[in-house]
Amino acid sequence: MKREHMEQINTATKAVQVKKNINHFYFVACGGSMALMMPARYILDCECEIPATVYTANEFVHRIPKALGTDSVVITCSMRGKTPETVEATRLAKEKGALTISLSHNIGSPLWETTEYPIHYDWLDEPDMTNHNHTILHCLIFKILNAIQPNEKYERACRCIDKMDGIFKANIEKYSSKAIEFGANYKREKVIYTMASGGNYGPAYSFAICLLMEMQWINSNAIHSGEYFHGPFEITDADVPFIIIKGIDKSRYLDERAYSFCKKYTNKIVLIDAADFDMKDIDEDLKGYFASIVTGVVLRGYADALADHRGHPLTVRRYMWRMEY
Amino acid sequence: MKREHMEQINTATKAVQVKKNINHFYFVACGGSMALMMPARYILDCECEIPATVYTANEFVHRIPKALGTDSVVITCSMRGKTPETVEATRLAKEKGALTISLSHNIGSPLWETTEYPIHYDWLDEPDMTNHNHTILHCLIFKILNAIQPNEKYERACRCIDKMDGIFKANIEKYSSKAIEFGANYKREKVIYTMASGGNYGPAYSFAICLLMEMQWINSNAIHSGEYFHGPFEITDADVPFIIIKGIDKSRYLDERAYSFCKKYTNKIVLIDAADFDMKDIDEDLKGYFASIVTGVVLRGYADALADHRGHPLTVRRYMWRMEY
Repeated sequence: MKREHMEQINTATKAVQVKKNINHFYFVACGGSMALMMPARYILDCECEIPATVYTANEFVHRIPKALGTDSVVITCSMRGKTPETVEATRLAKEKGALTISLSHNIGSPLWETTEYPIHYDWLDEPDMTNHNHTILHCLIFKILNAIQPNEKYERACRCIDKMDGIFKANIEKYSSKAIEFGANYKREKVIYTMASGGNYGPAYSFAICLLMEMQWINSNAIHSGEYFHGPFEITDADVPFIIIKGIDKSRYLDERAYSFCKKYTNKIVLIDAADFDMKDIDEDLKGYFASIVTGVVLRGYADALADHRGHPLTVRRYMWRMEY
Repeated sequence: MKREHMEQINTATKAVQVKKNINHFYFVACGGSMALMMPARYILDCECEIPATVYTANEFVHRIPKALGTDSVVITCSMRGKTPETVEATRLAKEKGALTISLSHNIGSPLWETTEYPIHYDWLDEPDMTNHNHTILHCLIFKILNAIQPNEKYERACRCIDKMDGIFKANIEKYSSKAIEFGANYKREKVIYTMASGGNYGPAYSFAICLLMEMQWINSNAIHSGEYFHGPFEITDADVPFIIIKGIDKSRYLDERAYSFCKKYTNKIVLIDAADFDMKDIDEDLKGYFASIVTGVVLRGYADALADHRGHPLTVRRYMWRMEY
């Protein structure tokens, strides 16, 4: 990770460390950036006695949770730093006395100028993926955990960060032929469901709403593996496609159960099992937390292949950035 | 409301009142019962300085939020009281020292026997809808609010409860011809999206996963109105159907914005505007909170009409209750 990023993370972490009586972490963003925060919230939820929740930014802005105040830490994110709802959420949080930390690819953007503790991340033009949003956010979370409840586990987690670039690339390579197979076999589908739980629900949500609905105009819905049996499973039929993520975190059983049922009744199932990920040199007790960001990177390859086979580039939009809305 | 229900609510409320240092409310259930809890969580989020979150039961059981403990209140719900995940979530919460309150239609069920404070509700065989799950839960929430932070507003809210049966019935009647029109016009659709925000996201989610996917085998996804512009709106096209709820709570602007955009690009839009609900005798500052449960009741009429026009009764299942899963 670049020194610039690490210094910003350390500055934000120190601010959290000296804050007294934190009673809630709010993760606030929109769309893909909100999805990015779900694995981070999952880690806090498992490790920390301070509850954490995720809000889409405009709901946060209009609802104004009554609990929001001087005892809150609010973490926001926007790639271009111009998402008005996220900027407003950050402004509101600061006004209410919360500590605000924001991630953005765009230094000097409205979000950058609004927040107290901005953290920069690189994107696709930077080859070292350790500097991308997912890994930067994971690093921030483990640093915060180590600051408020020091544990050698979190120190090890921070050391794992530097191995992630190699791991992302090994898994992109590992899944490249499967991604192409997916693109070829699913290019005519009108609807594709995703399903996951735990830390992997975020990437499943992102794939459904950003990659499939937004960038491919394919109907989708990210079903929580635990919810599947309480309604959604009745949609399952031989010709209904599902992408199922089996995580290696605490809720793996939910994914296994959903997969076992689903594969009996559909012929169109794509399984991504995080147990098969190359997670070399990542400590056993931390693999689940890092696998969820590998899932997102692997799924991106599936989207690229689908776009290629459909002749519909991921960059095409019919509304976004083309008009006022 | 029947005296039996009110006594159970009062007993549970007193237990919350004497509990010290509550730092979190967890709402835990599955599918339609989880959706039911979203408007309740919304009320707490707006009114109470103690944060609240909703979990699907098996995620809660396997994740075991680290914050769960003696300072937690855990509210669970299961119609038949036999949902294994919800029973286990209640047992786990109790084991961790949390105060447990559970709603069920089934007295003596496993959930009933597991929880500390059971509350019974009636269902479709009871004509007075004040005794149904949604209104019972709303009553519990306002009683709890009044117990922990007394306010005449919550006393007024509790008095509104008794007016809800009339309001539900007036709105079922008011929307009956629109529901039939919906059934006739949308009976051949392969996908129908729902969209809402604030307290209405729960009924929109329930309609998508229970009524459409489970009971009609129609593809669906409940899109949050605030998320719509950050991905999902690209799916919008002339022949893509949306049911949009405009709430009258704090996030109405989100619904209005999504509706205004959506109606320009699709010819298949069904609007349910809570501002048109007959909310006679409900205090102005409370209408938004009660409208979200009216939304669910009105939507039920739409599902009945759709089922009728499709010759596919809402009671039919291909997997649920028919096999092991």
